[in-house]
Amino acid sequence: MIEFEEALKIILSREVFPEAEEVELSCSINRVLAQDAVSDMDMPPFNKSAVDGYACRRSDLADELKVLEIIPAGQIPQFRIKENECSKVMTGAMVPEGADCIIMIEDVEVLSSDKIKFTAEKTSDNICYTGEDIRLGDVVLKKGLLIKPQHIAVLASVGYSRPKVYRKPKVNIITTGDELVEPHQKPDVGKIRNSNAWQLIAQCEAMNVSVDYSGIAPDSKEETLVMIRKALADNDVILITGGVSMGDYDYVPDVLLEAGFTFYFKSVAMQPGRPTLFSSHKSGKFCFGLPGNPVSSFNQFELLVKPLLYKMMGHVYKPVVLHLPLAKDFHRKKSKRLNFIPVLLNPEGEALPVEYHGSAHINSLNDAYGLMSIPIGTTEIKKGDIVNVRPV
Amino acid sequence: MIEFEEALKIILSREVFPEAEEVELSCSINRVLAQDAVSDMDMPPFNKSAVDGYACRRSDLADELKVLEIIPAGQIPQFRIKENECSKVMTGAMVPEGADCIIMIEDVEVLSSDKIKFTAEKTSDNICYTGEDIRLGDVVLKKGLLIKPQHIAVLASVGYSRPKVYRKPKVNIITTGDELVEPHQKPDVGKIRNSNAWQLIAQCEAMNVSVDYSGIAPDSKEETLVMIRKALADNDVILITGGVSMGDYDYVPDVLLEAGFTFYFKSVAMQPGRPTLFSSHKSGKFCFGLPGNPVSSFNQFELLVKPLLYKMMGHVYKPVVLHLPLAKDFHRKKSKRLNFIPVLLNPEGEALPVEYHGSAHINSLNDAYGLMSIPIGTTEIKKGDIVNVRPV
Repeated sequence: MIEFEEALKIILSREVFPEAEEVELSCSINRVLAQDAVSDMDMPPFNKSAVDGYACRRSDLADELKVLEIIPAGQIPQFRIKENECSKVMTGAMVPEGADCIIMIEDVEVLSSDKIKFTAEKTSDNICYTGEDIRLGDVVLKKGLLIKPQHIAVLASVGYSRPKVYRKPKVNIITTGDELVEPHQKPDVGKIRNSNAWQLIAQCEAMNVSVDYSGIAPDSKEETLVMIRKALADNDVILITGGVSMGDYDYVPDVLLEAGFTFYFKSVAMQPGRPTLFSSHKSGKFCFGLPGNPVSSFNQFELLVKPLLYKMMGHVYKPVVLHLPLAKDFHRKKSKRLNFIPVLLNPEGEALPVEYHGSAHINSLNDAYGLMSIPIGTTEIKKGDIVNVRPV
Repeated sequence: MIEFEEALKIILSREVFPEAEEVELSCSINRVLAQDAVSDMDMPPFNKSAVDGYACRRSDLADELKVLEIIPAGQIPQFRIKENECSKVMTGAMVPEGADCIIMIEDVEVLSSDKIKFTAEKTSDNICYTGEDIRLGDVVLKKGLLIKPQHIAVLASVGYSRPKVYRKPKVNIITTGDELVEPHQKPDVGKIRNSNAWQLIAQCEAMNVSVDYSGIAPDSKEETLVMIRKALADNDVILITGGVSMGDYDYVPDVLLEAGFTFYFKSVAMQPGRPTLFSSHKSGKFCFGLPGNPVSSFNQFELLVKPLLYKMMGHVYKPVVLHLPLAKDFHRKKSKRLNFIPVLLNPEGEALPVEYHGSAHINSLNDAYGLMSIPIGTTEIKKGDIVNVRPV
């Protein structure tokens, strides 16, 4: 049994070879940028008016000003501003030469069709200066970035209409367990529905990874081996749930060995999530054996699988870890494993552990905002102490 | 000009009529549940072993135990456990009648093929009791829930293989501005690339709303009216960026009036984001006029548009608001508007404002974890004071 940090280090030390492909800008969210995005222009590309108003010289603010022209956004000014002159400018328009400030429409009295007067006491420049946000040649977004909607605006503005992103890894999901039936079936006595596979599919889709599902493996080594070999042919990563523990029917490790996998670990000092296996194939592909209980499987995907999938997409995953005050005293009896407890955010913004019966307690994550981690060796945490919470 | 809270209240007071549809379970993440999900069984449905071990009677722990059978998960036990008897059980298997605890494999010495002895000092029950997590008839997930991967497991386990979810609203995006060219084009002097439309498309897609793009409206009332009428025919919500301010070419309000829209507000006391318009059409459809600057447009989508879109999907949106200590002193000169400042999380988990030049500073959101809100009237916040941060 190894500790979580060691398990993660082993996983992330595997070599991967992400490949790039071009996609439409509108298809690039939740993909990883495979190139530095370099600006082909200054932003703004000209001195730009930040407001609707009149471009003029600060030294003339006490005087009546003659209006030379109206400059809409997107048009080139015809006149240079000289003493006691101004031009009306729209937000986003080029500031005419000679002007050093824009007085806002609200601060102006219109005296006649071409005469105005500044009526306020003072004004800001109200000019966005050439290149103040981005300079021509600046790297605006770095290779390896996980693209979110706000980055789409940046890519658009510097001309990346078809950004290069890394190919999505292909994940195949296999569940094991003779006790499982699929969700559309009513379980007979002694059976339950398969929830893990569908949850893992959703977790993969939420991070925009390609995912396929092989079904429930029968409790037979031979048939499971066939399933694994087939999944291996067409995918980069296999996730198998169940069958990795100490039971007589937990033959997943044997089958993986026979399929040519090398194991790095089979057990991690985590609760939930101990029976977790990580292995690689000589083809460069990977297989995780995940616990059969749905809360364990959910957590191990978030904590161990996701970092590898992101690495395969060319992204260094740095999960958000919030430091939040605990809403009430917490204690546990055993402290040999790193514990993850579902918590919600109370109205005070504190982490409040939810009712949680253990790794089979499927609905304990219903209202959870995140997972609070309890380090090995810690049995007590007091209300108000700061705990680490990973949003899920 | 109205305040943000009032604007949000107006938006959310509009009546909407979400319609339901059935989808495949694997397509239901980021959709909103249109029915209570009721369990058709107890969970667990039987007394279930939580470990691999031997089911026996606590009163016999001091004695040698005869092994009656091996019970894999999914099979029905054949024998009742009586004095000094046990059955081997796998994790997830039914606990045989008569047993009141499961001793773990690790705590057992195997004496012969059908004799074992408990070697530890004490044991937990290691039994998950019938219905301890979910009772037959329990509402496990409520109508209106925004479905995340962890809820997929719950839906699967209680048999919702085709859950009813609300139909996605259809959003159409129109940008205005003669200064705009599309991302694949190189802007001429005085022009910039259109970033808002692509960002809004991404924001809609990130929340799993149907989205279509009409293009850049020319600075002509007639042509814009045609575009709006066309968008109105096929969509539930129109988002128009730009053209809502005080400039001579800001004719969006006029065109919307002509298209039959009624305005609720045209200006909100927010920075960025003041020139924001909300209107509804007699057909029951809505139109937002969003600011032309990309940071403003991003924020107003998150703060005002998203709550309406979720309402149209049958979901009461309660954005996460974290209470985080501020990493360094903050001050601003003007305090008449509710201010939103992009912040990142520093390693101490504090909110650290990023470099931010204003609403056109397109790359200020690159590294932002969230938006810190500065209330009206507040000009100073000290390092260490708690601020409200909405993750973006």
